[in-house]
Amino acid sequence: MNKLEERILSDGRVLPGEILKVDNFLNHQIDISLMEWIGEEFKRRFGDCGVTKVLTLEASGIPPAVLTAYKYNVPLVFAKKAKSGNLGDQDLYRAVVKSYTYGNEFTVTVVKKYLSAEDTVLIIDDFLAKGEACSGLLEICRQAGAKVAGIGICIEKGFQPGGQKLRETGLQVESLAIIDSMTDDSITFRAQD
Amino acid sequence: MNKLEERILSDGRVLPGEILKVDNFLNHQIDISLMEWIGEEFKRRFGDCGVTKVLTLEASGIPPAVLTAYKYNVPLVFAKKAKSGNLGDQDLYRAVVKSYTYGNEFTVTVVKKYLSAEDTVLIIDDFLAKGEACSGLLEICRQAGAKVAGIGICIEKGFQPGGQKLRETGLQVESLAIIDSMTDDSITFRAQD
Repeated sequence: MNKLEERILSDGRVLPGEILKVDNFLNHQIDISLMEWIGEEFKRRFGDCGVTKVLTLEASGIPPAVLTAYKYNVPLVFAKKAKSGNLGDQDLYRAVVKSYTYGNEFTVTVVKKYLSAEDTVLIIDDFLAKGEACSGLLEICRQAGAKVAGIGICIEKGFQPGGQKLRETGLQVESLAIIDSMTDDSITFRAQD
Repeated sequence: MNKLEERILSDGRVLPGEILKVDNFLNHQIDISLMEWIGEEFKRRFGDCGVTKVLTLEASGIPPAVLTAYKYNVPLVFAKKAKSGNLGDQDLYRAVVKSYTYGNEFTVTVVKKYLSAEDTVLIIDDFLAKGEACSGLLEICRQAGAKVAGIGICIEKGFQPGGQKLRETGLQVESLAIIDSMTDDSITFRAQD
């Protein structure tokens, strides 16, 4: 069992609706030592993938993406959930993302000059469930003509279809913890090397 | 001139409405080397302040806050802009923040168990103008009974009242770049040690 899996068992909480609360170390209060391990582990798994930019989605994707970009020493771009008056006049890549957590849709945007066909992008996010956020980030990479080095996820809900859907496209998807099942009193991880 | 000031001069753009665009290195695309320097510089300025937690506000405060927490090796807590169904049932600190950029108000929240009277908090944010976001984070620290070690800001608009207002309370406010005036073709920084 790796550090993230151990931490999920010790500090995560399963709530009704297949919600895993990890806000005491991953997405509200952030354990920086764990985040550094996450960055190192993504670098170990993706190795010399030629990444030129790390791409994530605000807000909770940013901490693991910052430490991954730090370990690779490349810039980070975080896609924004559209609303910014500041961004209104710019030339944007846009993709629509459905949120099952909030029961709505939103548009994610990246200013065009920050991703191009010259880039090799490593996508990082905190959670993967149905894969909607990742699909939106992939769509932005497609619009940019950028190569995608892979997708690095902290926690994948392996009982939901996102991971399989993304892997079937041939992309390298690395999830540091894959939960195959969870109940009030037990969490089962998929075995990984 | 320090690294951030140099970068603002080389890559920042002044837009109508006293907007400084720094989205190519600070708050959309993130220069990780610069962000590491920012974390080190906050640590140099606040020194042995006894910080136990870094506090910021999603989303663009997160990258400098992550690197500052990394340099101090303490947890980061990022306040959320209220809307999360996941947070609805929890015991929250709340503060109302007025946004002049978007012309509205929003509520920022922190789950109570992540800040307490045992904590000494270093508040980090990317911009300081009228001081509304910082005042909201200070209000959350007040509700928690936490000690505030200080406020670290990347870019302060020195021609707006936030910095003076916060310093008059006796808090240590460290802004890595303080802009005293800006026009289409010139930016003047306040001299600092």
